[in-house]
Amino acid sequence: MEVNRPLDIINQSKGKKIIVEMKNGKQYRGTLRAWDAHPNLVLEDVEELDSGRKYLWIFLRGDNISAVKPAE
Amino acid sequence: MEVNRPLDIINQSKGKKIIVEMKNGKQYRGTLRAWDAHPNLVLEDVEELDSGRKYLWIFLRGDNISAVKPAE
Amino acid sequence: MEVNRPLDIINQSKGKKIIVEMKNGKQYRGTLRAWDAHPNLVLEDVEELDSGRKYLWIFLRGDNISAVKPAE
Amino acid sequence: MEVNRPLDIINQSKGKKIIVEMKNGKQYRGTLRAWDAHPNLVLEDVEELDSGRKYLWIFLRGDNISAVKPAE
Amino acid sequence: MEVNRPLDIINQSKGKKIIVEMKNGKQYRGTLRAWDAHPNLVLEDVEELDSGRKYLWIFLRGDNISAVKPAE
Amino acid sequence: MEVNRPLDIINQSKGKKIIVEMKNGKQYRGTLRAWDAHPNLVLEDVEELDSGRKYLWIFLRGDNISAVKPAE
Amino acid sequence: MEVNRPLDIINQSKGKKIIVEMKNGKQYRGTLRAWDAHPNLVLEDVEELDSGRKYLWIFLRGDNISAVKPAE
Repeated sequence: MEVNRPLDIINQSKGKKIIVEMKNGKQYRGTLRAWDAHPNLVLEDVEELDSGRKYLWIFLRGDNISAVKPAE
Repeated sequence: MEVNRPLDIINQSKGKKIIVEMKNGKQYRGTLRAWDAHPNLVLEDVEELDSGRKYLWIFLRGDNISAVKPAE
Repeated sequence: MEVNRPLDIINQSKGKKIIVEMKNGKQYRGTLRAWDAHPNLVLEDVEELDSGRKYLWIFLRGDNISAVKPAE
Repeated sequence: MEVNRPLDIINQSKGKKIIVEMKNGKQYRGTLRAWDAHPNLVLEDVEELDSGRKYLWIFLRGDNISAVKPAE
Repeated sequence: MEVNRPLDIINQSKGKKIIVEMKNGKQYRGTLRAWDAHPNLVLEDVEELDSGRKYLWIFLRGDNISAVKPAE
Repeated sequence: MEVNRPLDIINQSKGKKIIVEMKNGKQYRGTLRAWDAHPNLVLEDVEELDSGRKYLWIFLRGDNISAVKPAE
Repeated sequence: MEVNRPLDIINQSKGKKIIVEMKNGKQYRGTLRAWDAHPNLVLEDVEELDSGRKYLWIFLRGDNISAVKPAE
């Protein structure tokens, strides 16, 4: 794993399953589809961890993201 | 679905039903009418999910948005 | 209704009755008199929805606004 | 009342009694003495509404202001 | 009292006793020694009002300040 | 330890075990892999201190970080 | 004590024991080693006041700092 800047690991996670933790405590697991520098994230095939609800995709506003970690 | 940047998926959702989740926990379902880079959003034919109240339209301030997901 | 950018709908609401929802949960109903890009808003003939208190006008700081919706 | 931009109404309130509502719920009634674009405000002959405490003046940081309304 | 801009009253308070109210509700009374545009403030001979604890000086980060008022 | 600017100590911690404390109270212990000026941080071989859950890596958004301290 | 700008007192505290109070209420006592304009701070020989836990050093993110005061 080659990681020079923190966002490198986000970039390397494209197409992989990650868990995103929001500032309000919600967690979403899904496949990373797109990201930008904030980082705003788009996940596909998403599950909201507490409720078990599923979505085809979700847009997560970077400003409300606390942490990103691998799901596999 | 072609998504290079996170806001692409917002753009592709114009005219479609989405659910917007606010930082304060409120959720609104409606048809996406307009968006900008924050992203501020305008929905039409809106339902506030907890209360069931309905509005012809709603302007949602980007700064208070946490997540956007498809409603269909 | 022609809405290209989210703030268009705010502009089109000048002179009309709207409800503004603040981040702290307070809601104000009144006639939109002025707006800017934040959007800071000025309403006239205002009612605070929970308390029923009335004011000739109110200045609402954009930074604390969560949503704007039609009152009619 | 001629109000094109929201801050016009703040400017027209100089020398008049207003009530300022802070994000933390506190409210101050006093005569508007000075303002800037944030808007930071200075009131004179101030009363804190809940406690009834009085001050010769108060400086209110714009960042923590939620709303401004007339006191008369 | 000549006050054109809100920060003028902070400047005129140098060397005088003021009370600073923080967003988290804490209040500090002390002699204003230095200020900048945020406004970050330095007080001398400080008392924390709730606890009665005293300090030779305190640096208060402007971002967390809600209001400033005279102590005398 | 040569530390001129605060971020120097973050830089000197690369490859070492640190504990990161988030604004929401969560703490993560892991090996610092990457950092930037916010500072966004990437840790490897991470343990979430309260839950004991472990992750191969975690991206922590600088905006939600409160403190960083050594783990050894 | 010569203090023209608020950050002067931070600068003059280098090598001295200070107490830093965070927005979340935590307090850290330690020797100031480095600071910048936010101000991010690095303390050495640190004690977390509530828990009594000790650390060789701590990096405190300026954005979460509320106040700084002398410890001696």
